[in-house]
Amino acid sequence: MKMTNYLLGYKDMYIVQDPSMFKFSLDSILLPNFVTINKNTKEILDIGTGNAPIPLILSRYTNANITGIEIQKEVAEMAKESVKINNLDDRIKIINADINKYYDKSNSQKYDIITCNPPYFKVTSNSHINDSEYKTLARHEVALTLENLIKISRTLLKTNGTLALVHRPERLVDILSIMRQNNIEPKKIQFVYPKHKEDANIVLIEGTLNGKPGLKILEPLYVYDDDNKYTEEIEKYFSDKVN
Amino acid sequence: MKMTNYLLGYKDMYIVQDPSMFKFSLDSILLPNFVTINKNTKEILDIGTGNAPIPLILSRYTNANITGIEIQKEVAEMAKESVKINNLDDRIKIINADINKYYDKSNSQKYDIITCNPPYFKVTSNSHINDSEYKTLARHEVALTLENLIKISRTLLKTNGTLALVHRPERLVDILSIMRQNNIEPKKIQFVYPKHKEDANIVLIEGTLNGKPGLKILEPLYVYDDDNKYTEEIEKYFSDKVN
Repeated sequence: MKMTNYLLGYKDMYIVQDPSMFKFSLDSILLPNFVTINKNTKEILDIGTGNAPIPLILSRYTNANITGIEIQKEVAEMAKESVKINNLDDRIKIINADINKYYDKSNSQKYDIITCNPPYFKVTSNSHINDSEYKTLARHEVALTLENLIKISRTLLKTNGTLALVHRPERLVDILSIMRQNNIEPKKIQFVYPKHKEDANIVLIEGTLNGKPGLKILEPLYVYDDDNKYTEEIEKYFSDKVN
Repeated sequence: MKMTNYLLGYKDMYIVQDPSMFKFSLDSILLPNFVTINKNTKEILDIGTGNAPIPLILSRYTNANITGIEIQKEVAEMAKESVKINNLDDRIKIINADINKYYDKSNSQKYDIITCNPPYFKVTSNSHINDSEYKTLARHEVALTLENLIKISRTLLKTNGTLALVHRPERLVDILSIMRQNNIEPKKIQFVYPKHKEDANIVLIEGTLNGKPGLKILEPLYVYDDDNKYTEEIEKYFSDKVN
């Protein structure tokens, strides 16, 4: 494993990763900038945290305790390194475990917020499972299905706690249906478009456990402008300023 | 009833309406411009057709037979007048009936496309039911609930037929869940935003009976530009040209 320190985009923040295993993606930048955090947010869980980009960015917006859980040992090690080099050990805890097993042991109703950038693809006989096991687990629903993720979140969230996901629009009907089946009412959605005149390719969704129905569709987010440069909105996420 | 001929926006097309009863809205312009029509489209049904704006606009894009069904007698009369003054009697048929009863008598699996601009609001004890019965039936789920609309559509559509709705984003989870429960798979969605930096206030949805999962979120549609004028995209819908 070749671990390298990469700039997370924020001037003073670094992330440890090995590009041959996987790299954090734009998705992991978008989600922590989308989720609703407030003064009462005390406990946050990031499921499938990878090398911890989401906890790192969240730590800029909140003083809450953040736990990242990652099934792959080597990846969890990178996450721990990432936390360490940013001096965030007191606020971010990394656990190397399978969430499917972990949640039985932990206390239920513990978290105010759960974030997750889950595997996107259903596993079917036609699935192009990636050669690298690291990438496969991160991209395909081998270790964690959407249904299990949402069921587990229901158990771990406090009442009125928030589940925030980044996913693909193709799965929107699944996500909304399964959330509602589990009493997590979808409250806020933002679609992300690569550029003008194209279909959305990312969806950000936030739901509230035992929340009342009533969904807001936020203004669209464009990643690139017509010159193929990041738009102002996206640039903002990489700036040094905290909102 | 004061019936007046109004321009439908298209230079050569008129619609008959009585503003004290109700007027056609932007929703009714958006839906026929959103729905997927092709050469094989032979039979279209518009449920709750009002004074027939949707059939009138659809007639510009297709030679299919279009049926509009309207529960209110006086409104159906206006629809018939609208069809007549545009010389479309041979292609648009208006039926004054309650769709809840009508669909039992008609042949099932008849339609390639069903369009509907349904009542938006659930009826609850807090509902501000409008004084005018005309407006109440058009706006509140008194005569037709979302669930019934989708169930009826399932019966009336051919296999792979299309249901296209215009609705409010607040109801998105209901719409997608009920569609899927009735084997109408959501395939295409477009959100309409009043202007930049605001939440969406209209959603256009198309689903296919017995279709495969796989949803596209089309580019957003903005109604007004920053100067509060219709955007080019919306202006196009009122132009004289047929795409």
